[in-house]
Amino acid sequence: MDELTLIGIGTGNPDHLTLQGIAAMRAADLVLIPRKGTTKADLADLRRAICARVLGDDAPIVEFDMPRRDADGDYLDAVDAWHDAIARAWTAAGAQARRVALLIWGDPSLYDSALRIAARLAPAPRLRVVPGITALQALCAAHRIPLNDIGAPVLVTTGRRLRAEGWPPGAGTVAVMLDSGGAYESLYPAGITIWWGAYLGMPQELTLAGPLAELAPRIAQTRAAARARHGWIMDIYLMRRTDPAAKDTP
Amino acid sequence: MDELTLIGIGTGNPDHLTLQGIAAMRAADLVLIPRKGTTKADLADLRRAICARVLGDDAPIVEFDMPRRDADGDYLDAVDAWHDAIARAWTAAGAQARRVALLIWGDPSLYDSALRIAARLAPAPRLRVVPGITALQALCAAHRIPLNDIGAPVLVTTGRRLRAEGWPPGAGTVAVMLDSGGAYESLYPAGITIWWGAYLGMPQELTLAGPLAELAPRIAQTRAAARARHGWIMDIYLMRRTDPAAKDTP
Repeated sequence: MDELTLIGIGTGNPDHLTLQGIAAMRAADLVLIPRKGTTKADLADLRRAICARVLGDDAPIVEFDMPRRDADGDYLDAVDAWHDAIARAWTAAGAQARRVALLIWGDPSLYDSALRIAARLAPAPRLRVVPGITALQALCAAHRIPLNDIGAPVLVTTGRRLRAEGWPPGAGTVAVMLDSGGAYESLYPAGITIWWGAYLGMPQELTLAGPLAELAPRIAQTRAAARARHGWIMDIYLMRRTDPAAKDTP
Repeated sequence: MDELTLIGIGTGNPDHLTLQGIAAMRAADLVLIPRKGTTKADLADLRRAICARVLGDDAPIVEFDMPRRDADGDYLDAVDAWHDAIARAWTAAGAQARRVALLIWGDPSLYDSALRIAARLAPAPRLRVVPGITALQALCAAHRIPLNDIGAPVLVTTGRRLRAEGWPPGAGTVAVMLDSGGAYESLYPAGITIWWGAYLGMPQELTLAGPLAELAPRIAQTRAAARARHGWIMDIYLMRRTDPAAKDTP
């Protein structure tokens, strides 16, 4: 593997693909497609459909089974071992090609491991990154809202952090990714508006927006039902504290 | 104007355009192109080139002179009056069309006024938003770095805020947009690494990365020279505090 190109493909709408992404796919000798088990088969199907559309029916794709992260023990240690295992899987699957491309959900720069995994490849291939539409942008587009208030900052964080640390001190707008479900329930909801979206860009897209106090149970219910129906869910949300004097606790 | 579509076109590389953006341009009766004066003529040229490529030489485009924001008085008041003036300019320029498209630099959700201006149109057209590649993603792609540390938050803020408030308390990663120049100079640089980029995605793209203490003067010099050469500059940077024990002041 002389060259590895990480191509952001957006969040599930095949039309999120950029012209740069298409050119990079065509320039590759091989496209690696991860299989993440039956529950997320939709996602592998989407990657296959994108390859067929861009590269034709005889697209040079190789599929590999994505290693699983150890759920026990220290989180960062588990991530470290998992990244090593993925690097070995890429190396094995891409062994026959010089120029390899990986289709990355969203954008390779945002809460994605591919750049860190690529750094473990030995010998190191030339690395190229093609940016893609993130879930943050798809969320804002679906709700037709700006991410930021005028001239104001935005904190992008994870469900894990929000649950552990509460509303980030001084933050007006908080975007939450990688929430395994309901981290917003740990907040005192007064004065907080939420914009939620799941399966953004996909035909099954769901969106809800309104005061967190009213919406929290509806989001939980909608999320559980959608997850049961599709077998998996990817969601994200943006919150704004519309009342700066709101308290963190009742 | 029955329908207004805000189309994110990315940051200057015409190949940042998504298939969704292309389809939205083709569905429009008219594409509005703002003229921002001679210093940013490159940017209007880029929009014209994108239209010609997607829609052909007889692309239905209408150009209008972008009103200027009053530099005096209260900032938010000046922005308010400016947005009203732009809404009037859109209405006048788009008067003859039913379905109007606007090509938005980057993404319509991130530090862009178009959504707020669109909310002032009367009667209100149907609004559609097509996400585009942001400068944040182009910066990370150019440097081949992740935006976030593993599982860690990212604060996206403005040069104005950084200058006024210093390093945001508790932040590990800070992305700075809309900096009119050198807001990082107000920080005590020990333990901070910076990744800087200008004209991201364009042929004249410039990038610099390293310890802030060493790089601050080089960025200032590079930025001033590039601005003099091209007549304008758009840049952005990401900083990480690699040493959590670093102090805010010497």
